[in-house]
Amino acid sequence: MQTEQLVLVTVIAEAVVEHRLVRDLGAAGSHGWTICDARGQGSRGVRADEFEGSNIRLETLVSAEVADRFLEVLARDYFPRYAVVAWTTAAQVVRPEKYI
Amino acid sequence: MQTEQLVLVTVIAEAVVEHRLVRDLGAAGSHGWTICDARGQGSRGVRADEFEGSNIRLETLVSAEVADRFLEVLARDYFPRYAVVAWTTAAQVVRPEKYI
Amino acid sequence: MQTEQLVLVTVIAEAVVEHRLVRDLGAAGSHGWTICDARGQGSRGVRADEFEGSNIRLETLVSAEVADRFLEVLARDYFPRYAVVAWTTAAQVVRPEKYI
Repeated sequence: MQTEQLVLVTVIAEAVVEHRLVRDLGAAGSHGWTICDARGQGSRGVRADEFEGSNIRLETLVSAEVADRFLEVLARDYFPRYAVVAWTTAAQVVRPEKYI
Repeated sequence: MQTEQLVLVTVIAEAVVEHRLVRDLGAAGSHGWTICDARGQGSRGVRADEFEGSNIRLETLVSAEVADRFLEVLARDYFPRYAVVAWTTAAQVVRPEKYI
Repeated sequence: MQTEQLVLVTVIAEAVVEHRLVRDLGAAGSHGWTICDARGQGSRGVRADEFEGSNIRLETLVSAEVADRFLEVLARDYFPRYAVVAWTTAAQVVRPEKYI
């Protein structure tokens, strides 16, 4: 099966930021995303209390450039204010033209 | 910890295809899968409207052969008709004999 | 964007073990986790019947040491008794100091 490597970005965030997060993700260049409702507990320290309760788990398949742009936005606008966790993994994608 | 590399296949699809998707996944050789309810937005273009709303996020750990067979089925029977996104990642699995 | 590689551990388990699983995960050294409700079907064979129905999907970002310690606990205390599936993938993490 023909596949191409893209970047899978996963973000765990408080549910209240969903609308804003999706807007900023689209502005960074993503064309699609999937959100699951989640719960959990954050790291020890700052804002751990805010992280318990209702969260969302968002994932999006993007190019390395879009991933980097989105992570920069997260680091600048979200990390100082919200309990947000973000990571990337390498994904082999069918029909990569849908995402870039 | 002893682990073995398998292929983690993740599929995002409209909720209406769940029953059929699971049947076809089993026929391709998967012995187990996990499904979470999800919502999201697809890529710009064909069927993007269908992709908003109720989705499922399915994942299954399989051998490279089963992954390839399942992706071929998706490409042939689902991509032309449904809003389906599929990708694979490499996973290190405990107790790999359960999956192959 | 500055990232560091950590281990993403994903566990699928019966919902009834959630409380115990989270306690053991914390004891193994994890500082945070995310849980989504899930459903699914396990591998053929032992306890497959128990695996259908209400499951949870837990994920946690940890160091390789913590991942190994947690997988050992799963193998020793959970695999013989519960329908548990566990795998790891490599993840590039922003703000890795939150997890280690």
